[in-house]
Amino acid sequence: MQEPAARSGDGGLLRYRLDIRYDGTGFSGWARQPGRRTVQGELEAALSVVTRLPAALTVAGRTDAGVHATGQVAHLDVPPDALAPEQLVHRLARLLAPDLRVPAVRRVPSSFDARFSALRRHYRYRVCDAPWGVDPLRRYDTLAHYRPLDETAMNTASTLLLGEHDFAAFCRHRAGASTIRALERLEWIRDEPHMLAAHVAADAFCHSMVRSLVGALLAVGEGRRRPDWPASLLHSTTRTSEITVAAPHGLTLVAVDYPADDQLAARAQQTRALRSLAH
Amino acid sequence: MQEPAARSGDGGLLRYRLDIRYDGTGFSGWARQPGRRTVQGELEAALSVVTRLPAALTVAGRTDAGVHATGQVAHLDVPPDALAPEQLVHRLARLLAPDLRVPAVRRVPSSFDARFSALRRHYRYRVCDAPWGVDPLRRYDTLAHYRPLDETAMNTASTLLLGEHDFAAFCRHRAGASTIRALERLEWIRDEPHMLAAHVAADAFCHSMVRSLVGALLAVGEGRRRPDWPASLLHSTTRTSEITVAAPHGLTLVAVDYPADDQLAARAQQTRALRSLAH
Repeated sequence: MQEPAARSGDGGLLRYRLDIRYDGTGFSGWARQPGRRTVQGELEAALSVVTRLPAALTVAGRTDAGVHATGQVAHLDVPPDALAPEQLVHRLARLLAPDLRVPAVRRVPSSFDARFSALRRHYRYRVCDAPWGVDPLRRYDTLAHYRPLDETAMNTASTLLLGEHDFAAFCRHRAGASTIRALERLEWIRDEPHMLAAHVAADAFCHSMVRSLVGALLAVGEGRRRPDWPASLLHSTTRTSEITVAAPHGLTLVAVDYPADDQLAARAQQTRALRSLAH
Repeated sequence: MQEPAARSGDGGLLRYRLDIRYDGTGFSGWARQPGRRTVQGELEAALSVVTRLPAALTVAGRTDAGVHATGQVAHLDVPPDALAPEQLVHRLARLLAPDLRVPAVRRVPSSFDARFSALRRHYRYRVCDAPWGVDPLRRYDTLAHYRPLDETAMNTASTLLLGEHDFAAFCRHRAGASTIRALERLEWIRDEPHMLAAHVAADAFCHSMVRSLVGALLAVGEGRRRPDWPASLLHSTTRTSEITVAAPHGLTLVAVDYPADDQLAARAQQTRALRSLAH
């Protein structure tokens, strides 16, 4: 299978951007894996049916098993005689299962790279702290915590984590990959009496970083840890076992930001230089 | 099994009000049926385990198979030595499946009748009119319509239906039951680009009434019918086959209103007189 990087420079190919939504419950995550149902696998199979060519997607955020998306972004290169973007939306709507949808396809400049052009990723983590559990209609994307959470303490702790830090303590290590990230937003908002959501944004996240941050902050919200504890872990250069990684089903990738078209290439170059193996 | 009406007058019994939420996907509706999983069946079974007595619930809205609730209300009579309301909430949280939750139990006057004391019921019907389908995380409580809907035309048609009318054309007939209802609210609101919700309130609804109203209004929204068509059906005295009843999974019972405690008995008496067999 060709790598998209090798094809993107081909003069004849068009680049399409896909906006993607999925319920992660029935998927073993984004990344294609033999013998498992994954978002990339399902989507590439459907695209191959439509375009009659092997399809290789490059994605903004490689979500783990059980993690959802309402604002995932990927790109794909297609031959000049491929279906128009609107037709592709209609064909995919019929081909894909209801837990995987493609709300929009549009042609983008060949300098658009869903992964490396991204300025930042936005995630949301939903927690219900009611003693009776979680609203049945939101149980697929909301953690049932059962015990009351102090969001004031959680926001105090969250503020101390903002900025550019080495998040090694919160990341599953990958060889050669930097764990330095710029955390731009980490804020807990209580929308309803028992419904809390963490709104998280960073230039990028290392593996399991959002769920580790949430796990550490839940310990603060319960009163088991002090608000300065999560930030104290930033001094660590390796992953800590003191943090319980929060369950995947509370997490949703809600948006990915990109620069204006004339900044796409410069942004991609800058990102590749900073963290060639991170995502 | 004793009928709740026969027990409510017993001096020794306490009356509990239960607030109930469920995802209707896995239930054959509210009402107990032999050999089927129903909300009433599951809930009464769990209550019997906790109270060690047969439990009989009286409910505000007997929802059909597939219909959800975030604000269902029922009442139950328990002996004076029964668990306190808060303990009951905790026990039920452990006993019930995640698609059925009881967020609150409280003691109410014996004049409280979940069905007959209710002033009005509030329903919501969610429709997505995107060509690509419906957000996977909301597919359980949202109808995927695929074609654009004109909510201005739908609201024009809805306004003409407000007030007290004989809704026979929109109801599945029950012997001896009146089909006269006071429709207090029927309003379509577009929350997001492709997300429409009908907010519906009436003193009570006859069987399949909300879904028939929604079905008629979807025909208006698509342009297949004129905005004055649904109201023209109010002159009919029997159910019409011209309406496609909208699918149950878009419908959620969101709230039930009750009067102040000193008005409960008077309200129940008034309701019983008006429509003894309706609900």
